[in-house]
Amino acid sequence: MVKEPKKVDTASGPKDKLVKLGEHVTDQIEKGEQPTIELSVRGLSNVVYDKKTEKLGIGDKTSERAFFNVAHAKKFLQTIEVAAISKSLLDINKHASLRDVFYMAKRTIPGSKTNVVDEQTESDKAIEDLELITEFTREQLNINANKMGSVAGKVIVEDSGDTIDWSKLGSGGWSIPSNVENILFKKIDAKYIIYMEKAAVWERLHEDKFWQKQNCIIMCSQGQSTRGVRRLLQRLANEHKLPIYVLTDNDPWGIYIYSVLKYGSISLAHMSDELAISDVRYLGVTCDDVLKYKLERHYIKLTEQDIARLKQMAEYDWFKDHKEWQKQFKAMKTAGAKVEIQSLSSRGITFISDVYLPEKIKNQEFID
Amino acid sequence: MVKEPKKVDTASGPKDKLVKLGEHVTDQIEKGEQPTIELSVRGLSNVVYDKKTEKLGIGDKTSERAFFNVAHAKKFLQTIEVAAISKSLLDINKHASLRDVFYMAKRTIPGSKTNVVDEQTESDKAIEDLELITEFTREQLNINANKMGSVAGKVIVEDSGDTIDWSKLGSGGWSIPSNVENILFKKIDAKYIIYMEKAAVWERLHEDKFWQKQNCIIMCSQGQSTRGVRRLLQRLANEHKLPIYVLTDNDPWGIYIYSVLKYGSISLAHMSDELAISDVRYLGVTCDDVLKYKLERHYIKLTEQDIARLKQMAEYDWFKDHKEWQKQFKAMKTAGAKVEIQSLSSRGITFISDVYLPEKIKNQEFID
Repeated sequence: MVKEPKKVDTASGPKDKLVKLGEHVTDQIEKGEQPTIELSVRGLSNVVYDKKTEKLGIGDKTSERAFFNVAHAKKFLQTIEVAAISKSLLDINKHASLRDVFYMAKRTIPGSKTNVVDEQTESDKAIEDLELITEFTREQLNINANKMGSVAGKVIVEDSGDTIDWSKLGSGGWSIPSNVENILFKKIDAKYIIYMEKAAVWERLHEDKFWQKQNCIIMCSQGQSTRGVRRLLQRLANEHKLPIYVLTDNDPWGIYIYSVLKYGSISLAHMSDELAISDVRYLGVTCDDVLKYKLERHYIKLTEQDIARLKQMAEYDWFKDHKEWQKQFKAMKTAGAKVEIQSLSSRGITFISDVYLPEKIKNQEFID
Repeated sequence: MVKEPKKVDTASGPKDKLVKLGEHVTDQIEKGEQPTIELSVRGLSNVVYDKKTEKLGIGDKTSERAFFNVAHAKKFLQTIEVAAISKSLLDINKHASLRDVFYMAKRTIPGSKTNVVDEQTESDKAIEDLELITEFTREQLNINANKMGSVAGKVIVEDSGDTIDWSKLGSGGWSIPSNVENILFKKIDAKYIIYMEKAAVWERLHEDKFWQKQNCIIMCSQGQSTRGVRRLLQRLANEHKLPIYVLTDNDPWGIYIYSVLKYGSISLAHMSDELAISDVRYLGVTCDDVLKYKLERHYIKLTEQDIARLKQMAEYDWFKDHKEWQKQFKAMKTAGAKVEIQSLSSRGITFISDVYLPEKIKNQEFID
């Protein structure tokens, strides 16, 4: 069973939630009870795919973490320590990276030779705990993930006191921050968003003024999408009902990038409500495109790893009954080969902007 | 002996140079001579360090590439093919990525079963040939490298018809394009540039309004600096005499990032005039900083690879007689450990902006 969607509790922001957590623990101590936190189990055993919402989510298994349990004591401490760090960041209105939080938490427990954390994975896990406990994202707890990616289009936003016009930023575009929670969308004049995995392809479309001609937004990360990019896409999809078309290489990695955007990821299943975007559709490059646009001569042989990845993905709950994706997986396996987006450049440098994308979008050739 | 600095030939742009190359070849054909191109030898055997300019450069060894030599024929063809692609890009005023150029060059030679190129390394090498022959960078030949990095500061630039104020771009900053050749600097109000290897540190300084308080420019890439970033730094150093301070982790990789910025790299030694920046100074994190700011508890053990890298760098021509760097290498080896920039966050999240950087800069504690 999937956990109920979280109740909207407008009266309590991230800071209130952290204070409540602290009060919960001190209350227990004052009553002479053992300090205990209850939280949902993370990890594969409690990750479920919800067919209705088309998102990965966290199941209803919970576990208790008790301070006087030798197996729990350190994790308990780490969670409380990171909660205190997050609270102090919110107090002074500053943001820290995951790595910063690790160093801030890495102090020796007084009267001992033990550090609160020794590895970043420990503070990272504690941050995920806090996401579950508070039901806020780490970004809302003032902890940022990686910064990556660029965006352009006829959009005006307000951010940190500045008014920024995404259509007037030269060849570079706006550099997407790691944390997009406080961005205000002032004006949006676009019919859809094209999100691509490669910055070089973004530069191609940008130079061709694709966003201007097609009235859309172009956005990229580099490789797997950062959380900042995913949240920005989700906010544009939710708040402005913009469809999102994903453009990746025709390979297992490209399809996985799409999968994470649309359905969420296993490691962040507890954050799918904030990160997964049901309105995302896969534009290409599909196995059919390879034939239609005569890209077979640019086939690159699948590696062992590619083949294993393909098999694994074909068995995902959200792909296993999906006819179109099964067709794609089969076609790629039969060809034994993958194809890159940039192979379209063999048809001419602006072929992607002048022919491929307009045709695909006009004919609504997406995989949903 | 180092090759003479290139003559400034304002009358001939990249396109003229490519046309001349074509005419040179057709002239030979018309005269019944064997088509031949002469170019400087690339690679370690012809890379020299020039103590006077403090830059890596290409030596005076040249080699001939002849069309009717079985060992040269394909490379000859590849160079001419890529020259034609570059010319066609310049004609239509479009830019292509290295990967695009590979796909554009990957066609079958008529009447044969042989492709002009089979691997991207082949077209990449041909592009380097063109850089040597034309004495223009690949960016000036409309071929772009990777896009990466962000910048903020009191600077106004003009790019692709837009006027962009680097001080008014919210939390994201300007996304640095892969090609910065045509950017015009309209107004610069800054005393220096801090360039850092990590985007997370850039976000730290940006949130702390470091560039505003200290009147400087903050710029980052992620990991090794892209060519776009290097050219942008060089142009700001040359055209506006801004000193550049480099902030990296205290590890061999961080020092190498600095080394490439200042002295150039072996693989791009022929482009040092366009890429190496003598005015760059190393700000930190130094081995002395680790002691002064009590970061020893954040030591991370050097790997085998780190130790080998350290030894290798200590023997570089430009480091081997450099007392201060030798001291650093020795200190790092003795400690057997490296330290990350973000360990400064253990002293407080804004310690880097409030104490570390202002102190270092005020006391002019740089390695030059």
